[in-house]
Amino acid sequence: MDDTSRLQPGQRLQRGVARFLRDLGHASLLEFVPAPGLRVDVISISPKGEIWIVECKSCRADFTGDRKWQGYLEWSDRYYWACDTAFPAELLPEDTGMMLGDAYGAEIVRESPLTPLAGARRNRLTRDIARTAALRLQTAIDPMGVLQSGPGGR
Amino acid sequence: MDDTSRLQPGQRLQRGVARFLRDLGHASLLEFVPAPGLRVDVISISPKGEIWIVECKSCRADFTGDRKWQGYLEWSDRYYWACDTAFPAELLPEDTGMMLGDAYGAEIVRESPLTPLAGARRNRLTRDIARTAALRLQTAIDPMGVLQSGPGGR
Repeated sequence: MDDTSRLQPGQRLQRGVARFLRDLGHASLLEFVPAPGLRVDVISISPKGEIWIVECKSCRADFTGDRKWQGYLEWSDRYYWACDTAFPAELLPEDTGMMLGDAYGAEIVRESPLTPLAGARRNRLTRDIARTAALRLQTAIDPMGVLQSGPGGR
Repeated sequence: MDDTSRLQPGQRLQRGVARFLRDLGHASLLEFVPAPGLRVDVISISPKGEIWIVECKSCRADFTGDRKWQGYLEWSDRYYWACDTAFPAELLPEDTGMMLGDAYGAEIVRESPLTPLAGARRNRLTRDIARTAALRLQTAIDPMGVLQSGPGGR
């Protein structure tokens, strides 16, 4: 029931981050596409509607090979990196937030600055998170319905 | 894989309605609580953010025993009933929408009037749908995490 060996290192971090965010009262979604060509590891919504993005980096190469992360900043109110204790933390830009974590949880070791989304973008993003989560949930509970009706949805 | 015998009549309708809504491009969520004391059978969000509520009625008693439905009208842009062909359709108020359906699908037989939500309510409702769907999805993919951290979330 709690076998993490089938998960990749980045997926283990995603799981721990999502557990931590849930304890904070956030609802989170993995592998979300805020705009074409972008895909974030974890996006979450707080009870008051604040939106966080957390990118999970399992090793130096995973970070240095990422050419897209600055494009994620404009899609959240707060932006964090998540990595494990072996990660060279000095690589991470100082004006971004940071979490340390593993497959079982995470904690914030550096707060992210708050850069509030404009209203229209927040509304669009919240709607897209709602639709993505609801469609994935429907696929989970009624897989045959999705198979029969084709991709649709978006 | 497609055994509907374990579902109650109302649940069969819910499933068919959700399949139909998905074909229309809506993302839907079952058993959603828009406000304390209210619980709607199906709520959905269209690609443009329009919010529909669909109440599924399996028989006359199911409808006549419902004292809450008028409270649902103010939580959607459009409101529909869904029932099967055996349902006495003349019971349903004429100024509400109507779908006919079964466990496999549904169709609109009477359009609902459009009564647009105010902006603040739409935003709150969309955020709550996003959070509810994401938390349920997280529970589905990481049940042990939820068990360990307790209810939290809402």
